[in-house]
Amino acid sequence: MSVLRLPLRDWGRSYSRENLSADLIAALVVTVMLIPQGMAYAMLAGLPPQAGLYGSIIPLLIYAALGSSSALAVGPVAVVALMTAATAGSIAEIGTPGYQLAALWIAMISGALMLAMGLLRLGFVANFLSHPVISGFITAAGILIAASQIRHLLGIQTSGKTLPEVIPSIIENIGGIHWPTVLISALVLAFLIWSRKGLAPALRSLGLAAPTAALLAKGGLFLAVLASTLATWILGLDAQGLRIVGDIPRGLPPLALPAFDMDLITYLLVPSALIALVGYVESISIAQTLAAKRRQRVSPDRELIALGAANLGAGLSQAMPVTGGLSRSIVNYDAGARTKLAGAMTALMIGAALLALTPLLYFLPNATLAAIIIVAVLSLLDFGALPRAWTYSKADGAAMAATMAFTLVMGVEQGLAAGVGLSIVLHLYRTSRPHVAEVGQVPGTGHFRNVDRYEVVTAPEVVTLRVDESLYFPNARYLEELVQQKITENPALKHLVLMFSAVNEVDTSALESLEMIQAKLRDAGVTLHLSEVKGPVMDRLRRSDFLDHLDGLYLTQLDAMEALAPTLTRDTLARPRHEVRKPGA
Amino acid sequence: MSVLRLPLRDWGRSYSRENLSADLIAALVVTVMLIPQGMAYAMLAGLPPQAGLYGSIIPLLIYAALGSSSALAVGPVAVVALMTAATAGSIAEIGTPGYQLAALWIAMISGALMLAMGLLRLGFVANFLSHPVISGFITAAGILIAASQIRHLLGIQTSGKTLPEVIPSIIENIGGIHWPTVLISALVLAFLIWSRKGLAPALRSLGLAAPTAALLAKGGLFLAVLASTLATWILGLDAQGLRIVGDIPRGLPPLALPAFDMDLITYLLVPSALIALVGYVESISIAQTLAAKRRQRVSPDRELIALGAANLGAGLSQAMPVTGGLSRSIVNYDAGARTKLAGAMTALMIGAALLALTPLLYFLPNATLAAIIIVAVLSLLDFGALPRAWTYSKADGAAMAATMAFTLVMGVEQGLAAGVGLSIVLHLYRTSRPHVAEVGQVPGTGHFRNVDRYEVVTAPEVVTLRVDESLYFPNARYLEELVQQKITENPALKHLVLMFSAVNEVDTSALESLEMIQAKLRDAGVTLHLSEVKGPVMDRLRRSDFLDHLDGLYLTQLDAMEALAPTLTRDTLARPRHEVRKPGA
Repeated sequence: MSVLRLPLRDWGRSYSRENLSADLIAALVVTVMLIPQGMAYAMLAGLPPQAGLYGSIIPLLIYAALGSSSALAVGPVAVVALMTAATAGSIAEIGTPGYQLAALWIAMISGALMLAMGLLRLGFVANFLSHPVISGFITAAGILIAASQIRHLLGIQTSGKTLPEVIPSIIENIGGIHWPTVLISALVLAFLIWSRKGLAPALRSLGLAAPTAALLAKGGLFLAVLASTLATWILGLDAQGLRIVGDIPRGLPPLALPAFDMDLITYLLVPSALIALVGYVESISIAQTLAAKRRQRVSPDRELIALGAANLGAGLSQAMPVTGGLSRSIVNYDAGARTKLAGAMTALMIGAALLALTPLLYFLPNATLAAIIIVAVLSLLDFGALPRAWTYSKADGAAMAATMAFTLVMGVEQGLAAGVGLSIVLHLYRTSRPHVAEVGQVPGTGHFRNVDRYEVVTAPEVVTLRVDESLYFPNARYLEELVQQKITENPALKHLVLMFSAVNEVDTSALESLEMIQAKLRDAGVTLHLSEVKGPVMDRLRRSDFLDHLDGLYLTQLDAMEALAPTLTRDTLARPRHEVRKPGA
Repeated sequence: MSVLRLPLRDWGRSYSRENLSADLIAALVVTVMLIPQGMAYAMLAGLPPQAGLYGSIIPLLIYAALGSSSALAVGPVAVVALMTAATAGSIAEIGTPGYQLAALWIAMISGALMLAMGLLRLGFVANFLSHPVISGFITAAGILIAASQIRHLLGIQTSGKTLPEVIPSIIENIGGIHWPTVLISALVLAFLIWSRKGLAPALRSLGLAAPTAALLAKGGLFLAVLASTLATWILGLDAQGLRIVGDIPRGLPPLALPAFDMDLITYLLVPSALIALVGYVESISIAQTLAAKRRQRVSPDRELIALGAANLGAGLSQAMPVTGGLSRSIVNYDAGARTKLAGAMTALMIGAALLALTPLLYFLPNATLAAIIIVAVLSLLDFGALPRAWTYSKADGAAMAATMAFTLVMGVEQGLAAGVGLSIVLHLYRTSRPHVAEVGQVPGTGHFRNVDRYEVVTAPEVVTLRVDESLYFPNARYLEELVQQKITENPALKHLVLMFSAVNEVDTSALESLEMIQAKLRDAGVTLHLSEVKGPVMDRLRRSDFLDHLDGLYLTQLDAMEALAPTLTRDTLARPRHEVRKPGA
């Protein structure tokens, strides 16, 4: 299969010294960002800090070998870390071996699922997450993530995963607030928020050239880590109760298959599938956006394979689930990454840091990591999306609101399931009562439009219904009832034409309904005709005997009207150039 | 609400002596059929025989008061009895008070759900059961029902609810076969099968008038019951191990609320919803078919209310879940029932039988009831439906096959859930890769058809894509990729027209994709135009700012072509009268 072809040859052919230096700079910038972010997201996932660093080595190498995006930066990300914590936390207490085992199996299972879906070319299932659902989910997840970090910012203990659990827990424990922690949190937060916009201009005003300043400004995280670590060490804040990262095992990640536990794997199957879905959708959206900017293409199926293999690598190297991250990918792209080799270089640099630098991270405050998480999720929040979706479509707005409400109140899995379920049910509901327009001829043309919207010509003995929906099981009975009603309403009716220009499918249920309609019309002495039936629908209908009993079948609606109401269409020569609209329609 | 208006006044106005005698005869015929059938379906449901008789009193009176079908005969039916047994059997052993309580709560809950859905006018959810799924489910349920009765026919003990459980259990216990039981079974089965076609001619050849013979022939069940009961009593077969019905409590059903048990109710919620769905769909199909024959209409929402109340009545009167039954309704209709009063009369006759006749049923063999069940389900089996559906549509055939396989192997709930789930997923899958045709002008007309199917005129600088599907989340990304491909394939492309004649919806996800397409085209120097956008879609698009950035919007595709490729459409006067097809297309 071509999706499996290793893209290494592409590099060899075109990889220049210029690409090398661009990739090296990007890798360095991403590494400086990824070390604190990886540790922060590991904390968010309830895992030891090295899980985040390990998640930035083997998975990145695997993605570099298999992926199709040149700019995507793979690694631990906030939303997937939150979902991992929600699932692992429903099995065991944070910090226990059972919890860590669950996290490893989540990576393994979601990786295996992505890999399988990529090989089977099932990437389309990601489309079942509609934009409003994913957008509502990400915003709600961002709120939950921020809420979960308040305890680290305040230096208190809280419990719970949803807002109705976390907020009372914060209020209850607010008395135990630890002021040195709050101080560090406030300073780091303020600096990080300022540095997003203010650091580059500040560096320029210190005399640095604009490109250099922009590049160094990406090191804001690093500065915050450095300053808060030094402050903690010098002032001995850890002895005063400031929580710090502490010991991180030195050296590269150990490779091992997680302990096998069939019950655990069965339990994790559905949550891991949801994590895989969210991770994939997040990643592919970023990859496609960045590829479009460079007029490149990403292959959805190859992305699934690459992310799947990367997560298997994460599960085998004591890491956490990974996917493509938004902020990091943008930094990677902006810093000039030319090829996927930048990701591999990042992995090597993180590996080097693990061999040499872990003692330096001993005094890093958890509060700094929490502030890093909070600032990262600020970019996920999009509160304007809900009113936008609601204005455009009540159904989409409702699906989005339900996703957000369920995620915040019930949890991430429930929120996602509610959103997907509701969007499907609303779609089925909408198509179960399709728009059906009675149409007439736009005078002097071969064009037919809705009698309620346009000034059109009709004949009393002919009723033409344009069904604005595929005919399939949710609406099979609806058309039957509508036709029944038209027969009752129009005693003059002799011919019924169903205009099929918008009918893209007629399934077995609808075929049976059409046969019922045919029988009812025959009993009522009305003939049944079809017009403008599309090729694929016609091919399908030919497999049944429905057409044999049909009274008429016309290529165009005008043909039908000329045959059934010949008095109407004498004057078809003059074509008006503009819409003939009823006033007020 | 008009659906709640009691239809009693309609009777009073028009009820004649002629109607009375017709209804009385129909009621008598149905009663003679319903007494053995009710007991048989109670046995199938794992309940004492009186549950079936009680289910033929209060529920029938309630339906007569509230229902909208004049011919529907409500009462215990085979498929609902099987589903009741499957659900109650997963809670308690047959014959225990817990089992009977579960059956009562199934009636209560499914009744309450139907009532609520009727009041909320949610009858449309029944449409989510596609015809192939319901047909596959009914056939598979018929097979399971027949399999479950083999033990009664052979006089052995078996266990299990699915084919992989029941068949080995029959083989294992085949040694315990009871020959007198087999003999009774064989005779009754042979007589019932013969009597379906042979009894009426036989009665005529005895000199009876044809209508009288046809009416008496409906009493085949009664004759079988009478003969086998007498034989058992006279020959003392029960003492030789033939299983018989035994004591039936004399008198009318006791009215009482079943013992309240919140855990039980919670557990029963989903299975009861499925039972309500199947019961409703079965009943409404029968009611609509019979109503169409008499040019009457049934109201889906009022049917839900009537069936819901009838099931609540069943739950309150120690009965079993009920719905409209096919064979009984046809008998009711054929016997001449004019109004719903026939149902009420049936209920009174069953009540009279319970007061007077129960001792006569003491010696009725279970084998006779099993034979009655088997003959009844023979009419449910439709093995031809699967190849028919498969020929017409692979997706429908697959949904039907999956429903049958899951029902037979996993159980009724699983089968139904698999069928509904698979039909929805297959629908989403199909619409996620819509048919998109590149179209050109049928020469000399305002009509545009697929360039691959028709000999049409196109211009190199204009590509018109007719999207044969609503644009919504499952296919939002698909169109984006397709347009990308068209840009790459056609270097001469200057204008892209999306012909929206078959687009019935553009949801938020698709709107965002259209905006992406717009941006991509602008980057590539291609203009974007829409033609033949339907009213409801246009109303929706006006709520966004998409139209403001659009390069062109045309009422008809011909307008679009005249504007973008003016050289093509000079000669639009002559309209050919016939299809211009490519040879071999």
